[in-house]
Amino acid sequence: MEREIYLDNSATTRVFPEVAELMNRIYLEEYGNPSSMHHKGVEAERELRLAGETLAGILKCTPKNLIYTSCGTESDNLAIIGAARAASRRGKHLVTTVIEHPAVLETMKYLEGEGWEITRLPVDGNGLLDPEDVRRAVRPDTVLVSVMHTNNEIGAREPIAEIGAAIKEKNPETLFHVDAVQAFGKARIIPSECRIDLLAASGHKIHAAKGTGLLYVAPGVRIRNIIYGGGQQGGMRSGTENVAGIAGMALAAGILYGKLDEDLDKLYTMRESFTARVSRIPDVHVNGLPGRGSAPQVISLSVRGVRAEVLLHALEDRKIYVSAGSACASNHPHVSETLRAIGCPAEDLDSTIRVSTSVMNTQEDMDCAAQALEEIVPMLRRYSRQ
Amino acid sequence: MEREIYLDNSATTRVFPEVAELMNRIYLEEYGNPSSMHHKGVEAERELRLAGETLAGILKCTPKNLIYTSCGTESDNLAIIGAARAASRRGKHLVTTVIEHPAVLETMKYLEGEGWEITRLPVDGNGLLDPEDVRRAVRPDTVLVSVMHTNNEIGAREPIAEIGAAIKEKNPETLFHVDAVQAFGKARIIPSECRIDLLAASGHKIHAAKGTGLLYVAPGVRIRNIIYGGGQQGGMRSGTENVAGIAGMALAAGILYGKLDEDLDKLYTMRESFTARVSRIPDVHVNGLPGRGSAPQVISLSVRGVRAEVLLHALEDRKIYVSAGSACASNHPHVSETLRAIGCPAEDLDSTIRVSTSVMNTQEDMDCAAQALEEIVPMLRRYSRQ
Repeated sequence: MEREIYLDNSATTRVFPEVAELMNRIYLEEYGNPSSMHHKGVEAERELRLAGETLAGILKCTPKNLIYTSCGTESDNLAIIGAARAASRRGKHLVTTVIEHPAVLETMKYLEGEGWEITRLPVDGNGLLDPEDVRRAVRPDTVLVSVMHTNNEIGAREPIAEIGAAIKEKNPETLFHVDAVQAFGKARIIPSECRIDLLAASGHKIHAAKGTGLLYVAPGVRIRNIIYGGGQQGGMRSGTENVAGIAGMALAAGILYGKLDEDLDKLYTMRESFTARVSRIPDVHVNGLPGRGSAPQVISLSVRGVRAEVLLHALEDRKIYVSAGSACASNHPHVSETLRAIGCPAEDLDSTIRVSTSVMNTQEDMDCAAQALEEIVPMLRRYSRQ
Repeated sequence: MEREIYLDNSATTRVFPEVAELMNRIYLEEYGNPSSMHHKGVEAERELRLAGETLAGILKCTPKNLIYTSCGTESDNLAIIGAARAASRRGKHLVTTVIEHPAVLETMKYLEGEGWEITRLPVDGNGLLDPEDVRRAVRPDTVLVSVMHTNNEIGAREPIAEIGAAIKEKNPETLFHVDAVQAFGKARIIPSECRIDLLAASGHKIHAAKGTGLLYVAPGVRIRNIIYGGGQQGGMRSGTENVAGIAGMALAAGILYGKLDEDLDKLYTMRESFTARVSRIPDVHVNGLPGRGSAPQVISLSVRGVRAEVLLHALEDRKIYVSAGSACASNHPHVSETLRAIGCPAEDLDSTIRVSTSVMNTQEDMDCAAQALEEIVPMLRRYSRQ
């Protein structure tokens, strides 16, 4: 049987075997409710404590600054709605960009319906936000600015530290939320060094289980909870904690951050050899900045004259799995706002695929994928009805 | 090593080995994002489809009537807030009982802060709600009535069918939400037969993973989503679906409903032998209706003159794990509103433990626990400072 080459890691990742094993042990042995006062509860609580220490160590904060959620989307919702509700007396203005994930854009749209004013900032041709635009947008009544760390479609990395500085210089009370779902595990992020007040991450993008997410809340920052119940996690997120999921997410993060520099070298080497090779195919364009200017794991390719969906299925026939548009955004592929925002030519909007790698991929995977594109693209163009 | 006897199954349960195995396979092999268009997405989507068919078969509905959430608490929040927001033009009145889980009571309190009027109905000495009280409470502007199927502290089973009929006779537009977190897997529930519009369940109470929940929404019933993002699950619950968790929850439910009658006989036999034996200890009182009048798996014992926490730890020393109060409600045990509502004498409020069984328990477990209580209770009373 042909080997599967999974290059859709920005949609979701395979769970690390160590993580699956840990979760399995918790499911069968340490299955207590952390709120229980007896030994089984204490066991479960210890797993949560260990997870908190690992994650807090990575983000250089304390476990008290972490809220566990069910996914990156919930983390973004909690950050934005929670901050808006806690601070609505200070103003009703929010700032974001046009290239955010729907978890941010749709949450903003909901608040807009509740009477909030939303400013949506543009990006340049490489998907980058200008910190000066942020400075101009922030007003005395701006409650929060939400900017993604790494774009999920083209891998653009926003100048987070500069944006954080611009916000705080203009209005120290304005909160800075960073959607780091595509960055956590693939970039060193110290929230306190970038003036970040809120930071969202997801487990299933870092080889942990689906159904796990994280929200960092800086010391002194007040948000309101959006789910009501038994008061777990200091009232910030009611519902029995997903002990196995949280422990697994911490283990996966620990594995990734334990060898981040080495992994980044590997991922960038893979990215560069791949982009160099596919760029030689006529009329194939790699979106975003080259080299370390972009995230290591996201490669956006516009293949003129070939419909993305057709190319995706042609690669699928060779057990190479990539994405057309942003799979985690919707079942129904639609025209990408990110590609539009970076000025992607109209004829390429529907002809762009995303190749997204992880530490579980190898150079051989990239070579196979590049070779497949070299063979498939000219063939599809020949048979194209366009 | 002494065997552990886990009798805190209403707080959480051990994951069935078959369920852990299925989840493990999905973590390592069928790890795709169900929104992905390629083979890995199709694999994941098939797991969701199979899960939907199993769960819909149990509830006698179609998979389209099911929303997957992260826990019972989220399901209750989505049902109540979602229904309130969708129907606020019809009125701003909600009805519930004084003995609901915090997932319902705190959600109601939040809506009260938003200007909703809440009617909280009392229960009788066995924890039962009178359908006539519901009929009287429902008004032309009542948007929703929320009643739990099975009480988590004393196992009272509410007359759901009669309550459903009373609501709809008084106001056919009023929605009926049932918190079935403690009932799902332990009672045959056909929502359409009880006029139920919304029904919440949780995975980790039925030997599936923490971090999984379910909301049934009857055909034609409109609610608003409370989490915004990529539009998964028809927009009702954004965020990548927890494929392994959902598949595991469906498998666990299928196992339980595949042999429900047999399990109920076993659980009731265990309950009856246990309550008969512990009732013979002087000044020990079993709360709620005897026999099949209560849920099979919840046994509430008031042990006069012995503090619940002390008794819990004495049992813990013998590796017998029970609960004082409702562990899933809070880290900090507080006086139980349910016990107060059923008229539990003041001196027993702090002296009540909950023994909660599951199909993984045996008659031997119950005999050991009964014997332990026979030995421990007189001893603790002798040394009690009260």
